[in-house]
Amino acid sequence: MKIRIGIAGYGNLGRGVESALRTSDDMELVAVFSRRNPADVKTRTGVPVYSMEQALEMKDQIDVMILCGGSANDLPEQTPALARHFNVIDSFDTHARIPEHFANVDAACKEGGKVGVISVGWDPGMFSLNRAYGQAVLPNGADYTFWGKGVSQGHSDAIRRIEGVQDARQYTIPVEDALERVRKGENPELTTREKHTRECFVVAKEGADRAAIEQAIVTMPNYFADYDTTVHFISQEELDRDHKGIPHGGMVFRCGTTGFEGENKHVIEYKLTLDSNPEFTSSVLVAYARAAYRLSQKGESGCKTVLDIAPALLHPEAPEALRAKLL
Amino acid sequence: MKIRIGIAGYGNLGRGVESALRTSDDMELVAVFSRRNPADVKTRTGVPVYSMEQALEMKDQIDVMILCGGSANDLPEQTPALARHFNVIDSFDTHARIPEHFANVDAACKEGGKVGVISVGWDPGMFSLNRAYGQAVLPNGADYTFWGKGVSQGHSDAIRRIEGVQDARQYTIPVEDALERVRKGENPELTTREKHTRECFVVAKEGADRAAIEQAIVTMPNYFADYDTTVHFISQEELDRDHKGIPHGGMVFRCGTTGFEGENKHVIEYKLTLDSNPEFTSSVLVAYARAAYRLSQKGESGCKTVLDIAPALLHPEAPEALRAKLL
Repeated sequence: MKIRIGIAGYGNLGRGVESALRTSDDMELVAVFSRRNPADVKTRTGVPVYSMEQALEMKDQIDVMILCGGSANDLPEQTPALARHFNVIDSFDTHARIPEHFANVDAACKEGGKVGVISVGWDPGMFSLNRAYGQAVLPNGADYTFWGKGVSQGHSDAIRRIEGVQDARQYTIPVEDALERVRKGENPELTTREKHTRECFVVAKEGADRAAIEQAIVTMPNYFADYDTTVHFISQEELDRDHKGIPHGGMVFRCGTTGFEGENKHVIEYKLTLDSNPEFTSSVLVAYARAAYRLSQKGESGCKTVLDIAPALLHPEAPEALRAKLL
Repeated sequence: MKIRIGIAGYGNLGRGVESALRTSDDMELVAVFSRRNPADVKTRTGVPVYSMEQALEMKDQIDVMILCGGSANDLPEQTPALARHFNVIDSFDTHARIPEHFANVDAACKEGGKVGVISVGWDPGMFSLNRAYGQAVLPNGADYTFWGKGVSQGHSDAIRRIEGVQDARQYTIPVEDALERVRKGENPELTTREKHTRECFVVAKEGADRAAIEQAIVTMPNYFADYDTTVHFISQEELDRDHKGIPHGGMVFRCGTTGFEGENKHVIEYKLTLDSNPEFTSSVLVAYARAAYRLSQKGESGCKTVLDIAPALLHPEAPEALRAKLL
């Protein structure tokens, strides 16, 4: 019998999960739930769409619900609400609020005897795993996380809110020289400016003051002021043609020393190069949905994160096969 | 109370564990066990040395025994024998015999109510983890493992057995062009020769036939015949001066696609650059010793591998702290 999956929220992430499930033979997509009018939502694979309110009626037909809403407004409410009735997976990524979200989901899961796995994706997610493994293996060392080259949705949105801007796309780019120093094991102290640059492609409205827009971008606190930022004005056609993808990625490093005199250096690098940020995140969500189902079958309940889940639980093959083939 | 560790076998790996324990505040080294005469073995930190036969007398003073013997002759016997009385960790790395070793250690652990973790290190070990995570997250894709640049002890030993050879050191080197193709997501099919080259530094005995030695190396089946191999003859002084380190490392890649048309490519790369192969392996052993102790405290028993162990169990900090700081 296949693991029966529901998707709550049908945006980029929801479509990514729908697509990822097609390459997982042990899982099947049963239903999509949306806050929009179900009649207005057409899924790519033809799987039925229901309103979010109908989810509870289907709780016996779904083994794991994958939440595909946003961290700002959707998940803080939706994940605990659904965790009373379903095993749930989400990609909650507001790092500072993870302990609070964990507590809420944990309470809901325990009330319903369900398993919840929060903050699944690549950061938080695969990057978090690598920070944990790295620190555990090389306690005497330093961590580095770099992001990009990739599109930052938040920074793109911030540019779009500037007066005179019609559309924009922002790329976060790691500084090559900083990467090289880290890879050499120099353990440098790096400022924000030394780690990443920001490159912006902006479509100005007709007659807008481009110099003022550029000035507003490069001096914007939190988003751009602490970075070396480049602004390119291009046409809407160019933006649509050359910048419609959502690539991302980055690197987690752990650089440490061993030996009685700390004389031996070691560098661990975990690097992601992703054509589609939402589709990769979706793929991670689907793997952890398998783990949530298995944990639930073993009688576990409560909230977990990627740090609490053994790698073998993510993989479709049995432990014996993994030992023979992957170790 | 600290986790009390014993070391069985005091070679490069045992000394690496002794060193690694100094950076783990929650653990302490209680004793080293050796098959040599204890009076002839002096530990770096002054910790007492006992004969292997005395180990059982100390079973109430040791929480986890870390086995530091070799995979060919020591571990197949020692790990099951000690697993009846101790929680054990080993670095058994004969890939083809892992299922058999697992079965033996599992039976012994269950008899004694102990936890055993086998095949801990970087390959098998951290590389195995990354193969499992990669396949689980990108089911539609290909795996690549490259080793080096690093010293292969097995290949160095094979050269030393050739007539006329006094000493030798062999480096395994990944082919840069192959790495680039994999990093670009080309998913190439690569032959043995296309993935790695082998570089040998050889000290010939006085009067030895160097041409014959070189010929014997490059045509040696299994070890060198399938590779492009370079042989350099150097003096013993040069070998001792320039090649006394034991660096190693390598990369595990998972390259896959997502999307309804498989249109988006993703590359996951896990890369290790290690000054000291045995000291890094030792560091991984120590982290998994912490996990074995915690699993044992929870009442678990039986044999595990790195695939069965949640990452949080390796880390000295509590789950709440990890969620707040690492996710």
